[in-house]
Amino acid sequence: MKVVVKEDILKANDTIADVNRKRLEEHGIFVLNMLGSPGSGKTTCLERLAGMLQGRLRMAVVEGDLATSRDAERIEALSLPTVQINTGGGCHLEAPMVSQAIDDLPLQEIDLLVIENVGNLVCTASHKLGEHRRLVVLSATEGDDKITKYPPMFQKTDAVALNKVDLLEFTDFDVERAVADLSVVNPNAPLFSLSARTGQGFEELVQWLDRERATLFGS
Amino acid sequence: MKVVVKEDILKANDTIADVNRKRLEEHGIFVLNMLGSPGSGKTTCLERLAGMLQGRLRMAVVEGDLATSRDAERIEALSLPTVQINTGGGCHLEAPMVSQAIDDLPLQEIDLLVIENVGNLVCTASHKLGEHRRLVVLSATEGDDKITKYPPMFQKTDAVALNKVDLLEFTDFDVERAVADLSVVNPNAPLFSLSARTGQGFEELVQWLDRERATLFGS
Repeated sequence: MKVVVKEDILKANDTIADVNRKRLEEHGIFVLNMLGSPGSGKTTCLERLAGMLQGRLRMAVVEGDLATSRDAERIEALSLPTVQINTGGGCHLEAPMVSQAIDDLPLQEIDLLVIENVGNLVCTASHKLGEHRRLVVLSATEGDDKITKYPPMFQKTDAVALNKVDLLEFTDFDVERAVADLSVVNPNAPLFSLSARTGQGFEELVQWLDRERATLFGS
Repeated sequence: MKVVVKEDILKANDTIADVNRKRLEEHGIFVLNMLGSPGSGKTTCLERLAGMLQGRLRMAVVEGDLATSRDAERIEALSLPTVQINTGGGCHLEAPMVSQAIDDLPLQEIDLLVIENVGNLVCTASHKLGEHRRLVVLSATEGDDKITKYPPMFQKTDAVALNKVDLLEFTDFDVERAVADLSVVNPNAPLFSLSARTGQGFEELVQWLDRERATLFGS
């Protein structure tokens, strides 16, 4: 009984996620759902991406957090349209929350919408929001065992950004092991080694974004 | 209606948590629930604690993970009684899981049971397991904004272990800011700056554990 209820809830969520995606597609907006642990560096990656795409792609951001508007303030400082969702303790974003957030965005002026999910390597994986692609940000300081320890997150993503590689030398993170684990869990997902702090490796991530966007909207 | 159901579920969980705690108390076992983000260093803290308590307190460990027995294998390598719980995708441990795990432990030979929860800075906060105290492990590499961004976790803990301080100099983590935030969110919780990798700061954590244990069982 409990499982049936959960399936119904997820089905309702996915239906609204589909509506979100189609609505954004009508405006030519490519949607990226960015996921990862607390402190993996999602917001800093966003700041770096915004800088690289400036003048080329018009970006907007939906920020998901339990509380505070700290992340949204960081993004707004970059003069990007930003909507903060506070879940009030909730552990993940859901499609209806994003549906409301979209209402507050100038859809005619956006090419790329990045939804930064709540910092959570588990619950966010099971809720579609209306995204075309998912990107999991994993930091080198979290350890190289996370891909096998949190399989749903890595099975359901389209790519992995291995962040904070500027700190690799101070950790025992084994990049080859992570790549090998990912090739088992999700053989189609590329892994980009990068540092949001130094900018290292972001060219590859932007190229991936461009390619994925082109499959939907042309280049 | 939905909220009522959730309250009932949590009430059932808490009832079983009480049973767990009383059962372990009858054996003079002090129970610590260790929580934190994926990769904050919970298992490494456990390894360090085990080394420091060796010959003085008999420690056992319950390991919670979505999948794999990697953490339990690390603890078993220290010759400690260890039970691995795999939640099969579940985002937190619940009291009934711990109840079953206890059945597999030699309760007469344990003074301290540490339950390492699933790596999750949200959902684990709302489920009591039978612990006497909670310790949240927050790593310096996660950033100093986490205490205000994830309030339930830090409101409900008894202490915070700020781990990976050996990497502080490579981050912009402001310890004073974290201490100030914690003093607002949870004025009674001490914050211990430590490094599970180097051992720095663990004396204070062990002293705190001894004091808390003494309030229940005498020294």
